[in-house]
Amino acid sequence: MEKLYVIKIGGNVIDNESVLDKFLFDFARIKGKKILIHGGGKIATEMGKKLGLETKMVEGRRITDKAMLDIVTMVYAGLINKQIVAKLQKNNCVAIGLSGADANIIPAKRRGITNGIDYGFVGDIPATAIKYESFIPFLSSSLTPIICPITSEIITDENGVDKSTGSLLNTNADTIATRIALALHYKYSVSLIFCFEQRGVMTDLNDANSLISIISLKDNYLDIINSKIISGGMIPKIQNAASAVDAGVNEVIICNSNDLLKITEGETLGTTICK
Amino acid sequence: MEKLYVIKIGGNVIDNESVLDKFLFDFARIKGKKILIHGGGKIATEMGKKLGLETKMVEGRRITDKAMLDIVTMVYAGLINKQIVAKLQKNNCVAIGLSGADANIIPAKRRGITNGIDYGFVGDIPATAIKYESFIPFLSSSLTPIICPITSEIITDENGVDKSTGSLLNTNADTIATRIALALHYKYSVSLIFCFEQRGVMTDLNDANSLISIISLKDNYLDIINSKIISGGMIPKIQNAASAVDAGVNEVIICNSNDLLKITEGETLGTTICK
Repeated sequence: MEKLYVIKIGGNVIDNESVLDKFLFDFARIKGKKILIHGGGKIATEMGKKLGLETKMVEGRRITDKAMLDIVTMVYAGLINKQIVAKLQKNNCVAIGLSGADANIIPAKRRGITNGIDYGFVGDIPATAIKYESFIPFLSSSLTPIICPITSEIITDENGVDKSTGSLLNTNADTIATRIALALHYKYSVSLIFCFEQRGVMTDLNDANSLISIISLKDNYLDIINSKIISGGMIPKIQNAASAVDAGVNEVIICNSNDLLKITEGETLGTTICK
Repeated sequence: MEKLYVIKIGGNVIDNESVLDKFLFDFARIKGKKILIHGGGKIATEMGKKLGLETKMVEGRRITDKAMLDIVTMVYAGLINKQIVAKLQKNNCVAIGLSGADANIIPAKRRGITNGIDYGFVGDIPATAIKYESFIPFLSSSLTPIICPITSEIITDENGVDKSTGSLLNTNADTIATRIALALHYKYSVSLIFCFEQRGVMTDLNDANSLISIISLKDNYLDIINSKIISGGMIPKIQNAASAVDAGVNEVIICNSNDLLKITEGETLGTTICK
């Protein structure tokens, strides 16, 4: 099967222009098919502040009322997405910026009130909502999709048919990356790569030698999750990665954005989560 | 040749949610291939005001410094474009929102300082910059492109080769619609339709019977331009339409957004500019 890289960049890469430029320079040079998913929460929070809107987070998710939905739509789908796309054109990577509403690639369901908390326009992606077919026009034309975490709301009617409501939803970028990797792994040999500011999964963030190079489902995975040797914030990321590998994604890599190109060229860097 | 509608909606359609919803309901029902181009200047001006940025217009063009470019990118490519796309999905029209940077569909040159006025990040589209080929992935997949007036800056290097700079530019939506119609008229029988709040070209805006139904290049065009029977603001629109027809676009129609669907079904409404 042909190789496909599904790559997610975190907020700390996007927030720093020189780090982002270096990342996009490298990303453009990755050989073969690739998809980029980006967030941009800090910039959205700043824009909210400028417009007099306070950001409320619950368990890492942004409470998204209509005014906040407009802001994240502007910031993610407009400002950040189009800046990334234009910079990739400069690097001779023919990119196409997409939200989940575009070509209906990512339908999602509104979370609404869950456990007594009204998340508002936050979207969750049903397991089989993303279709491989939606990506054909782009991947078969050698266009590189750059995807922002805005999705298109669907509801299931009384006959069990999904219908678009015409609303947008704010959706977690890690989840989008994982779900896209899962939707495409039947057709491609998918490597799902999460790029962030650290070297990978570390037992001690201040000790470069504490990197865990391999987390294997059948070997050390449960030990690592149960041992509390890694920080709490990293646990859901590893669990998410493990579930993707378990479901058929070839490998998941958690790495520093500076190491991305070298990893795609065969170097062993960051943390690889595999079977 | 297959029919293609290139349709532009003006600000007064976008600013009014119920008018926009009605327009999109109709637009989704147009049979055959179609492309929508939208502006959104008023909403950008309001957003600028909220963010403490004053809008300066010179001859109908927005002076676009970096801060204003960020605002129009957020508003046009993010907020308005994605809201239109989501609403079209609800109407079973599989739309894809694009800026000129996406898939590099609309390269443009920075106007910069012209006649002593620094327009900043305003883009002008060189005559042959838009390529039919860029639209193939969308039109051949039955995706309906929804295009906002943000373009991708190119410069011509010392060898005469055009290169992306990685910057975005703010570009007139009427110009984009016309240039797309011209780029695609070799492959499609193109009707270019400008939808706005009036019935068409009128000699008296208060008299519904004063609509000019047909402006023919070889017949009454010059008389109308020279006679001063129509308002000054309409003259450049008609000249623009005439130049498109002269260059090979099948017909240009200037009409009310409520009449669009009926026109595509064969009714004679609005003003048709033809050879």
